Amino acid sequence: MTRERQAADFNIEEVAKFWAGGQDKLALKRKAYALIQTDPELVVQPPRNFLELSREEMREFTMGQVCRMAEVTRQLEDKTLASEVLRAVDIYSESFSMRIGVHTLLFRNVVSMLGNDDQKKHWMPLVDDMRIIGCFAMTELGHSSALRGLETTATYDMEADEFIIESPTITSSKWWIGMAGHTATHTVVIAQTTVQGKHCGLNWFIVQLRDLKTGELMPNVMAGDVGSKVGHQGVDNGWIQFRKTRVPRSQMLSKWVQLERNGTFHPAPNPAVMYGTLIPERIGLVVTMIQMVSQSVTIATRYGVVRRQGHKNQQIMDYQSHYTQLLPAVSFMYMVKASFETLDDQFAVLTSGGNMDEATYLNHMGDLHALSAALKSMVGWHCSDILETCRRSMGGHAYSAYNAIGHTLGDWGVFTTGGGDHYPLLQQTARVLRLRLVQQLDRGISPKFKFKSSAHFIQHAKKYLAVSQWDVDPAHLQDCLKDFSILTQALHIIIIKRLHTIEQAVKKGASEDDMLMDSVRVAELFAALFLFEDNAERFGRTKPHTLEASAASILHRLTGLWGLYVLIKYADQGIREHFLHANHVNAADQLYKKLCKDLRYQLIGLTDGFDYPDFLLKSPLGKHNGDIYTAYFETVLQAPNVVGVPAYFERYIKPLTDRS
Amino acid sequence: MTRERQAADFNIEEVAKFWAGGQDKLALKRKAYALIQTDPELVVQPPRNFLELSREEMREFTMGQVCRMAEVTRQLEDKTLASEVLRAVDIYSESFSMRIGVHTLLFRNVVSMLGNDDQKKHWMPLVDDMRIIGCFAMTELGHSSALRGLETTATYDMEADEFIIESPTITSSKWWIGMAGHTATHTVVIAQTTVQGKHCGLNWFIVQLRDLKTGELMPNVMAGDVGSKVGHQGVDNGWIQFRKTRVPRSQMLSKWVQLERNGTFHPAPNPAVMYGTLIPERIGLVVTMIQMVSQSVTIATRYGVVRRQGHKNQQIMDYQSHYTQLLPAVSFMYMVKASFETLDDQFAVLTSGGNMDEATYLNHMGDLHALSAALKSMVGWHCSDILETCRRSMGGHAYSAYNAIGHTLGDWGVFTTGGGDHYPLLQQTARVLRLRLVQQLDRGISPKFKFKSSAHFIQHAKKYLAVSQWDVDPAHLQDCLKDFSILTQALHIIIIKRLHTIEQAVKKGASEDDMLMDSVRVAELFAALFLFEDNAERFGRTKPHTLEASAASILHRLTGLWGLYVLIKYADQGIREHFLHANHVNAADQLYKKLCKDLRYQLIGLTDGFDYPDFLLKSPLGKHNGDIYTAYFETVLQAPNVVGVPAYFERYIKPLTDRS
Repeated sequence: MTRERQAADFNIEEVAKFWAGGQDKLALKRKAYALIQTDPELVVQPPRNFLELSREEMREFTMGQVCRMAEVTRQLEDKTLASEVLRAVDIYSESFSMRIGVHTLLFRNVVSMLGNDDQKKHWMPLVDDMRIIGCFAMTELGHSSALRGLETTATYDMEADEFIIESPTITSSKWWIGMAGHTATHTVVIAQTTVQGKHCGLNWFIVQLRDLKTGELMPNVMAGDVGSKVGHQGVDNGWIQFRKTRVPRSQMLSKWVQLERNGTFHPAPNPAVMYGTLIPERIGLVVTMIQMVSQSVTIATRYGVVRRQGHKNQQIMDYQSHYTQLLPAVSFMYMVKASFETLDDQFAVLTSGGNMDEATYLNHMGDLHALSAALKSMVGWHCSDILETCRRSMGGHAYSAYNAIGHTLGDWGVFTTGGGDHYPLLQQTARVLRLRLVQQLDRGISPKFKFKSSAHFIQHAKKYLAVSQWDVDPAHLQDCLKDFSILTQALHIIIIKRLHTIEQAVKKGASEDDMLMDSVRVAELFAALFLFEDNAERFGRTKPHTLEASAASILHRLTGLWGLYVLIKYADQGIREHFLHANHVNAADQLYKKLCKDLRYQLIGLTDGFDYPDFLLKSPLGKHNGDIYTAYFETVLQAPNVVGVPAYFERYIKPLTDRS
Repeated sequence: MTRERQAADFNIEEVAKFWAGGQDKLALKRKAYALIQTDPELVVQPPRNFLELSREEMREFTMGQVCRMAEVTRQLEDKTLASEVLRAVDIYSESFSMRIGVHTLLFRNVVSMLGNDDQKKHWMPLVDDMRIIGCFAMTELGHSSALRGLETTATYDMEADEFIIESPTITSSKWWIGMAGHTATHTVVIAQTTVQGKHCGLNWFIVQLRDLKTGELMPNVMAGDVGSKVGHQGVDNGWIQFRKTRVPRSQMLSKWVQLERNGTFHPAPNPAVMYGTLIPERIGLVVTMIQMVSQSVTIATRYGVVRRQGHKNQQIMDYQSHYTQLLPAVSFMYMVKASFETLDDQFAVLTSGGNMDEATYLNHMGDLHALSAALKSMVGWHCSDILETCRRSMGGHAYSAYNAIGHTLGDWGVFTTGGGDHYPLLQQTARVLRLRLVQQLDRGISPKFKFKSSAHFIQHAKKYLAVSQWDVDPAHLQDCLKDFSILTQALHIIIIKRLHTIEQAVKKGASEDDMLMDSVRVAELFAALFLFEDNAERFGRTKPHTLEASAASILHRLTGLWGLYVLIKYADQGIREHFLHANHVNAADQLYKKLCKDLRYQLIGLTDGFDYPDFLLKSPLGKHNGDIYTAYFETVLQAPNVVGVPAYFERYIKPLTDRS
């Protein structure tokens, strides 16, 4: 392992700084890790094993983390450290991350983005101090992504100046609501609104669920836990049914809509603002996905260099099947992480959205919706594949719960469906892009995206459609790795051509659904391209940057690897447009494998750059010092009921083996 | 749901008969299901939920199933029914399947295939009556697929006429051994054998692990459970360490090798015979995979026709993303199931192998190894993808443990690694095929495979290599669906060309590892082709068969769908050889989507054909009558601790919400 670390041709500490967001942030992160490591209410202390907790224990321990975290936040004077501690616990425990995320990213964002000043003044201090615990009642037992189908109703009773919230059917039960099972005292709920007999669209209401002193349900509210899940056993996902629950008019969130006392309803300028909170949720999910998956990648990489197998008793990492699959995974982690910078800026503009003029805000939101929907979906699917790659990289030990990857795979369950199903999300992105393409081709309107690296290339649509095939000589494909713009442009052309083909098919009579899978694929490629283009600019050689030279060099190479990987992975798109040919594909494949082989010995340094301490990874098989077998055996020996005659011997074994 | 059933344009009962293996077998299967459904020791009785059992409960319940099953087998006079009951429990519980499989498929097969007559006479009655419980000690903590690296030793002590079995290091601990954790009284163990100071290869020994009356470990044997796993919590996978454990010479399995009293060692005619038991294991795994995954496909399909979503509140099955993914999955289930017939014949030849002459047996084994290795790997990976497709098809409810798919995904963990890692297995297949190709090209030797549908096409290698591109007009691609030989031949040509390209690269200096990923891909395609070709013959229109007409018709269409799917999925292989072009790919894609659309309404009938009763599927979301939401809600309400104030309220919630 030491040899593998020394083989890194870059300064690992510098890459760790980059990953953390700078030297100060790295120091702060390490301080936060040290702080939580020995806190028994934040981290399960050995010999007890986090991976062995039952559902009940997980539910309790996770709420304990939330409670303790609130205390730590109050006690710590350094608020930057406090939020870093929160992030550390977040990384340590996905269930904690989700409980906290429900309260702050979902409940808080809805109040903050959709509440008017009076409402914010009243509710925000309670939310921020966790004197109330919030949840987010959107999805229903029978309805999720397509909000228009929601069944929960809110009917205005003008006489009482109250809304009556009602769950009219079993399928209208709010379902999957994080923290609704045991914990939440309040919820925001989205409901079909009727005022004076007239349907006024979907609106958000604040409803109290439980008594603050007793934890008992409020009258006319039914709620419970949804029981066992595939992962996140620490989160009390729940269901809620409203039985003519009454809330005052003042609890309808009214930044964008208003209902006057006399029943006059002022609708939102654009119904889309009511779903604006879903964008930060999706960007938040991308952050969480990278946090989770980079841990699994670390574990798989370390195991891969320690484990030996085969005729020559080689390190398994030396096999092509290993390094050509783990390298794009590592490179992907860095690409997404680096692009957070770009996304964070957008995110900030959005959440402070109320302070911009309406038209700009709505335009910005539409753009960010297209990008975030594609990105969340593409990152979700890629990470899903990467987790499976990591699992398989562990060989037989993939099967042990103590590799920690199995636990992550369980928790992962929510990411490819939660926050929106990927098919409609990607379809929406493809539609936005097609619309812009048509505007460009028919009327010469260039897209006014706010992001430099998003869909600006549509302005070249006419020129790109005229290109018949890639003019890069396969024999000189390696030039792409020096000048990233060669690859960027190729991907631009492929996307334009695919969008155009889809558009033509629809014009000729194909339904939108007939083109669904094609739309999904091109939108996925669009997100993959965004990551490449954004980082090609960041790590390309033409632009000076502040990174230390060896760190800049390895990130440059990882960017090239990602670009090449995208070209190969989505080669079908280029082939179908006659733009790529067999010789391109063969050359790209060869170059890609060579590049991976060249980078094989950078893997340990690169995963060290994520800087996860052992206690956080929870995996004896991913131990930093490489002494994995002893650690693993010790972990097994500490598990309950692993030695001695089992409790069921007399009942079920002896009757077979001890017959006369 | 009734409407969906009625939409089937074939007789569902006839397809169910086909799936079951005939009318009598279907009746027997239904009888067996009815028999186990109410037996509390074989099936968890409601309101208790199988999916809620803890690890301890699962371990005990599963061994209870084994014990009860032994009793049922003794009691039932109809032995065909008894083995059908065993199969039913097998399908109901993967953990049971594995416990029983370890004893019968692994332990029993080793004794039966590698033991001499005396040994079989002594041990087989004990094994068959389960008076001893066996396990299979092959893999070690530090070693798995590559057996040559195993560290456990067996040293002959001539004076005592005994072998001394020893685990010299921590990494030599036998690991993952099913039933070694709590239950097994005996094991077969594979060890590096030394006689008179001379290494005599790997040999198998029978060693007693536990006392039959007390369950206590035997002296000089250490063993325990490996604790928590990703799935199969009912199986006590364990570790074993031998501390100079002594066994008499007669416990070295001696069908193929012999050690005389004077220390003269007669080696096996071919070391491969010592691993011959791995072939039935792999074929057995394929059977199990289809049993498991066809259940998940049933659940996802039923959910897909009940669930409605989107603008028009459509059945989600009407979306292209749904039916184009579930249809190839269903078709794949039927293809593999049908090809069992072919495999079973081979399997029978192999297990009765001792009765053939040695040369024929070894040749047969080599051939079957190549096919079974590729098939286990390809089926494993495809099923893995299908399970993920099923999971995602459940939308948000993918996340509930009560959909049963999450449980299957956990159990699934073992299939893509257990029984051999797919990369080396597929590489081995590719090597066998390449060797045969070289023999054909250089010396005109046609492969003497025993199976008509395996690699016979290599005899046309010269002719196929001379073909430059596919001569099928893309505009008439639908002809492939009438005459399957068009597709079969195209796939043959692609495989030959790819093998030849790999061979040429190696000749030019590429290492075997440089060609690993290419080899893996072509071997995967070979297995996919085998399924198509085998079924093209079975369900093609040219051959009369005994199937009822409507069943024959749907199976014919499913075969075409599978062939087309293979062409598209492995199109990269044809593209890279300049054999397929953009127009082929576009035409195939269009035809495939059209075919799927045409078959959309056959899905419920086809999954009904698997004939799984509700209790066996365990999934309220996959209920046969389509009344899923009520069933699901009822399941949730029966879970522990789902309503009322949680136990941790006073400790972790009140301190936040009830502050003054």
